[in-house]
Amino acid sequence: MKRVIKTQTEFEGRIYEEHVVIEGQGLEAWPQDASLKIVGQPQPRIDGAARVTGQAHYTYDIRLPGMLYGAILRSPHAHARLLAINTERARALPGVQLILTHENIPEIPWGNGQTRLLDTTLCYAGDEVACVVARDPDIARDALELIEVEYQQLPWVLDPLAALEPGEPQVYQRGDLEAGFKAADIVLERSFRTQTALHNCLETHGSVAYWEGDQLTVWDSTQHIFGVRQGLAAALGLSLNKVRVIKKYMGGGFGSKNRLGKYTVLAALAARRLGRPVQLMLSRKEENLAAGNRHATVQRLKLGAKRDGSLTAISLKAWAAVGAYGFAMAVGGPVRQLYRCANLRTEEYGVRTNTGPNSAFRAPGYVEGAFALESALDELAHELNIDPLELRLKNYTERDQIMDKPYSSKGLGQAYRRGAELIGWRKRGHTPAGAKLRRGFGMASQIWGGGGGPPAHALCKLNPDGTALVISGTQDLGTGTKTVLAQIAAEELGFPLEAISVEIGDTRGPYAPLSAGSMTVSSVGPAVRMAAHDARQQLLEVAAQLLETRPAELSIAEGYLIAPGGRRVALKELLADKLGQFIIIGRGARGPNPEDRRVNTFGAQFAEVEVDLDTGAVRVLRLVAVHESGRVINPLTIGSQIEGGIIQGLGFALLEGRVVDRNRGIVLNANLEDYKIPTMLDVPPINHEMIDLADTYANNLGAKGIGEPAIIPTAAAIANAVYDAIGVRLTELPLRRAAILQL
Amino acid sequence: MKRVIKTQTEFEGRIYEEHVVIEGQGLEAWPQDASLKIVGQPQPRIDGAARVTGQAHYTYDIRLPGMLYGAILRSPHAHARLLAINTERARALPGVQLILTHENIPEIPWGNGQTRLLDTTLCYAGDEVACVVARDPDIARDALELIEVEYQQLPWVLDPLAALEPGEPQVYQRGDLEAGFKAADIVLERSFRTQTALHNCLETHGSVAYWEGDQLTVWDSTQHIFGVRQGLAAALGLSLNKVRVIKKYMGGGFGSKNRLGKYTVLAALAARRLGRPVQLMLSRKEENLAAGNRHATVQRLKLGAKRDGSLTAISLKAWAAVGAYGFAMAVGGPVRQLYRCANLRTEEYGVRTNTGPNSAFRAPGYVEGAFALESALDELAHELNIDPLELRLKNYTERDQIMDKPYSSKGLGQAYRRGAELIGWRKRGHTPAGAKLRRGFGMASQIWGGGGGPPAHALCKLNPDGTALVISGTQDLGTGTKTVLAQIAAEELGFPLEAISVEIGDTRGPYAPLSAGSMTVSSVGPAVRMAAHDARQQLLEVAAQLLETRPAELSIAEGYLIAPGGRRVALKELLADKLGQFIIIGRGARGPNPEDRRVNTFGAQFAEVEVDLDTGAVRVLRLVAVHESGRVINPLTIGSQIEGGIIQGLGFALLEGRVVDRNRGIVLNANLEDYKIPTMLDVPPINHEMIDLADTYANNLGAKGIGEPAIIPTAAAIANAVYDAIGVRLTELPLRRAAILQL
Repeated sequence: MKRVIKTQTEFEGRIYEEHVVIEGQGLEAWPQDASLKIVGQPQPRIDGAARVTGQAHYTYDIRLPGMLYGAILRSPHAHARLLAINTERARALPGVQLILTHENIPEIPWGNGQTRLLDTTLCYAGDEVACVVARDPDIARDALELIEVEYQQLPWVLDPLAALEPGEPQVYQRGDLEAGFKAADIVLERSFRTQTALHNCLETHGSVAYWEGDQLTVWDSTQHIFGVRQGLAAALGLSLNKVRVIKKYMGGGFGSKNRLGKYTVLAALAARRLGRPVQLMLSRKEENLAAGNRHATVQRLKLGAKRDGSLTAISLKAWAAVGAYGFAMAVGGPVRQLYRCANLRTEEYGVRTNTGPNSAFRAPGYVEGAFALESALDELAHELNIDPLELRLKNYTERDQIMDKPYSSKGLGQAYRRGAELIGWRKRGHTPAGAKLRRGFGMASQIWGGGGGPPAHALCKLNPDGTALVISGTQDLGTGTKTVLAQIAAEELGFPLEAISVEIGDTRGPYAPLSAGSMTVSSVGPAVRMAAHDARQQLLEVAAQLLETRPAELSIAEGYLIAPGGRRVALKELLADKLGQFIIIGRGARGPNPEDRRVNTFGAQFAEVEVDLDTGAVRVLRLVAVHESGRVINPLTIGSQIEGGIIQGLGFALLEGRVVDRNRGIVLNANLEDYKIPTMLDVPPINHEMIDLADTYANNLGAKGIGEPAIIPTAAAIANAVYDAIGVRLTELPLRRAAILQL
Repeated sequence: MKRVIKTQTEFEGRIYEEHVVIEGQGLEAWPQDASLKIVGQPQPRIDGAARVTGQAHYTYDIRLPGMLYGAILRSPHAHARLLAINTERARALPGVQLILTHENIPEIPWGNGQTRLLDTTLCYAGDEVACVVARDPDIARDALELIEVEYQQLPWVLDPLAALEPGEPQVYQRGDLEAGFKAADIVLERSFRTQTALHNCLETHGSVAYWEGDQLTVWDSTQHIFGVRQGLAAALGLSLNKVRVIKKYMGGGFGSKNRLGKYTVLAALAARRLGRPVQLMLSRKEENLAAGNRHATVQRLKLGAKRDGSLTAISLKAWAAVGAYGFAMAVGGPVRQLYRCANLRTEEYGVRTNTGPNSAFRAPGYVEGAFALESALDELAHELNIDPLELRLKNYTERDQIMDKPYSSKGLGQAYRRGAELIGWRKRGHTPAGAKLRRGFGMASQIWGGGGGPPAHALCKLNPDGTALVISGTQDLGTGTKTVLAQIAAEELGFPLEAISVEIGDTRGPYAPLSAGSMTVSSVGPAVRMAAHDARQQLLEVAAQLLETRPAELSIAEGYLIAPGGRRVALKELLADKLGQFIIIGRGARGPNPEDRRVNTFGAQFAEVEVDLDTGAVRVLRLVAVHESGRVINPLTIGSQIEGGIIQGLGFALLEGRVVDRNRGIVLNANLEDYKIPTMLDVPPINHEMIDLADTYANNLGAKGIGEPAIIPTAAAIANAVYDAIGVRLTELPLRRAAILQL
């Protein structure tokens, strides 16, 4: 029985109501003391061998008969009007099959109607101008240089503050801000800046489009195959049954692959026109110009507190440079949620600049926001002469203050204690003053959404030899989704792990949401458990008839049916041998979220750094991370997520940043030579642990999600450690040597 | 609720009992007078455009990164022992990657244990000796010639009678044969011979094997993806979840692709060893040597009848040359089933010969058996001076005589009457005696299994814009399966046809049986209807909640929801706009077959021919076919099947036949130059009609299947027309000019 229910969700401080269709009541969560055999165990990736041997096929690897290759001509100017375009010489190049320009394609609106698929107004250096399709990618790229374009340059702006067109801000307010600040014994006001960061997924964005008659199949490097299907259908005027989107393996997304890309639509248009498949992959340079970034921010933060450290008021005014066609992320999230504070206001502006459009980037907004909040709080602690950790405990809250509900679970207190123990927080000390090498300790904490939610669906198909296939239209960004889903199904079915295969990344499978927001395991996993449960019930029904008993008398363990009296019957014997083609398809859906609880993830990180006052170099000596994200399904994959998040956070703290030529509006480091990301030599020892709590309110797994939490506090923890080392607050990321040397 | 039930099936006159798992009770069949909107209408193929534009990808078209190509070395001798094999020179050829021989692969039993995957005893010219894998197919084939093999030739046999090793025959008997013949007024005893015919599918057999870690994916040109999965898993010692088999488009199968081929296992073994994908496609010559054929038969038939034409006894003794590793098909089927006869015995031998293994070929056994039975009956009619059509009506039966049950429906009487009318049977006349061109009329009738059965499963997934995807692990041999399944789902859902897409040919989908036996529509179609019904019920449940009414108050037509008072609500508006990602997955299974009825298909064909006594040439002037196969789902696809069957039957009657050199045991015409199949110039006007009866016992569609019926009576009808023209009985197929000239 399906039920239509109303659910409440919070986004950017606002509460939204929507209808969701719910199937059944779901299953009770495995309790904290459940004796699980496969869930909770460190399981290597079930697709690890395929990935490391090169047998895994990514979008770039797709080869179809007659396939052609596309390349995109991009604006060389930060802002320009296209006056004329001449493709004659390019079309004459042998091997060129088609050139799409604004003159020969339909008007397809793009970026919430701000532009078109190919527009004559170009809003950043990298904006799409034309698309060449040729028999090989080199010819396509050569042809780009033969296209003659006449541009009229227009004025442009780069800096979020300079660009400020006072659009409608996102405002959130609670309590009485003025009264809050009045009640404060101390008020601290600071400005922070964070930089534009590039995702640099190992696998660049790209698509292969292939028409069979009126049926379009697209292989796309996307975090949301169903979203791409929806977007493509809308852009091309197709119904949803005519579009299929596939993504089997992914080399990272980090949020940059959440949405439909122009390259996908261009490939589909060209393939339709030519009657042949078209592959269009972005180069690394294009990737870094046009495929999204973490927006630069300016944040003005004001904290009011009592002498004992309790917060009386917080206000934040934030500007985010969303680029040409992007939109602002919730920079104010940490401020609104992380600490108990009755009087609070956030005011956030998304500011258009003539740079590549921003997009979500692992914990978007929260990384930027946490840097400001946690730096300011650290400073407040020093001003008040309170231990920074004590200050955080002073303002600890067990309730969500936006929706006014208790948290479903919150292990942040344990994380603080365990992290402090691991880093040696109580015993921390400074290098004697005057030394060239200064050591310091810093910490920061994290809040992030968690627990996922509906809709998410899965199927679990049993084979007659007692093995199973789990099918879900979710994606695996490289995080280990397939392995975790296999563990969940194996646990529920009572089958060994190797008896489970997992098929994902195909819109022919059941709907699953965007693989983002750290919600894949907690949205899709419960649906998989339900599907496995349904399959198991059907299996017991059939087995009971064959064994002339009742289903309740039977159980399954390690692939054997346990009959009354403890008799073990191999499933294969019972099913394959007796019934031949024995069919069970279990169906499962993510149940509803709890109505009276708010589900979030929490964690704390601690850094020890060494700053060289002669060179300005910051060396991170140690990082400790303790997070609470509900039940741990697989310690190995969760560990990879934490390490990956921390390393990206370290890059954000110390190395990364897009550099734009102020005189020309052109990106100077859209490559991996000049844009620095951490290498293994930059990575310090990382000591991470999970507070492994089953969150029985969150969903039937008790898991809340881990993709994003780990990146959130890293930069702030490092910055606070640098402050601790040198006694001077750096308010701009990345923490530059030059800035330290200027102190 | 799943139920385990026992079912009875008949095969070669024996009745078998087996367990089947049944889901629910199924739906009542649409009654004869149901007002259906999409089912029953002529619908062009939904994948027609993809097929004719070359966009459809067949197994040959698959290209994977790093793919290698295989070729098979085959025995040049009809029977030989492999004494030594030296691959040194072949391995030295640049581009050669691997050579598999019996020396370096596991011992994998083949052909029910009669041989091994690569064996040292070779039982026909074409038997597999070794497999080369190289960087391109030309190098692989060149390398075959560099392999040095020492053979010891062994004695061999070609003729089914000469070969006769008296193995265990299949015997069926009912009544008292001796008494039956004693009671006869006339006894007629004749021998017939039919030739070996080759399938000549447009798409040859072949596979692509690709490993991702321990997970094997195979694209295979097969009529049974689940069977290939099962066979591959057994051959390679894998569990079923580790094997995936895909077949999206097929260029014909005709029964030759029912089973796992050696090429598939060789490709999988080589791909595993090399860590790269391997494609192995058979050439036309290999196809015709080794990929199956219709077995040659010798049939001794004895009929006893009363003067009024009623049959008192029939006995048949049949020998079928099954080749090296084949098995006999039910040549005695028509004799056992087609006419009412209480006293009857069939005795059938499958005889090993040193020729390529036979396999099923469109109505296997029945085409051969019908030629003998229907020729003999025609002669009996002439002997008794009874109209051949009258004789058939005289021996008409409404009951199946093997399982002793009434037929679920039988429209053969109507087919006789309508066919006679169309050909002008009553007005038929002979060309005046002595003319060089003699005209004649002949007829024959057909019985064949029908109605399909469980297990077959399907899913029906609704999209939020009011479109749907049907998923089934069935195959489309080129017959239009996808179109017919789309019609069924559209009818049941109340959606327009273009709102339905169909995904088949992937073992990741729900189980469907072998696409053979004319049972795809009648096995899979009812499961699709059930899945669509389930989806529709869920849709109404959700819609009723949104519209605040009860599901029973709602209906769906043309993609609109019809609310109380006749208000029409577009599904897209209700679902996509209100609910966003709205998910419904309908699940359906083929219900049980009727216990108290036997389901068969019936038909009659009539031929008018002209025989040139000077040249011996037989020209077919007209063919009339009237068949009864239950409800007609799509007149276009059913018409294609009938025409295709008749054309193949015409080839079998007049042109086709494998020629083996008697001195060397080698096939002389394993190609399309010397092996003649009909071209469009050979095809006369074909007038076909269906007796469109809903068989409400058969299944919830009332459809019984049409793939095979049309080929069964064609050769006999032509042979009888030739007899009518020249007054001499030809008892051997094909009807050769030489035979006519010798008369």
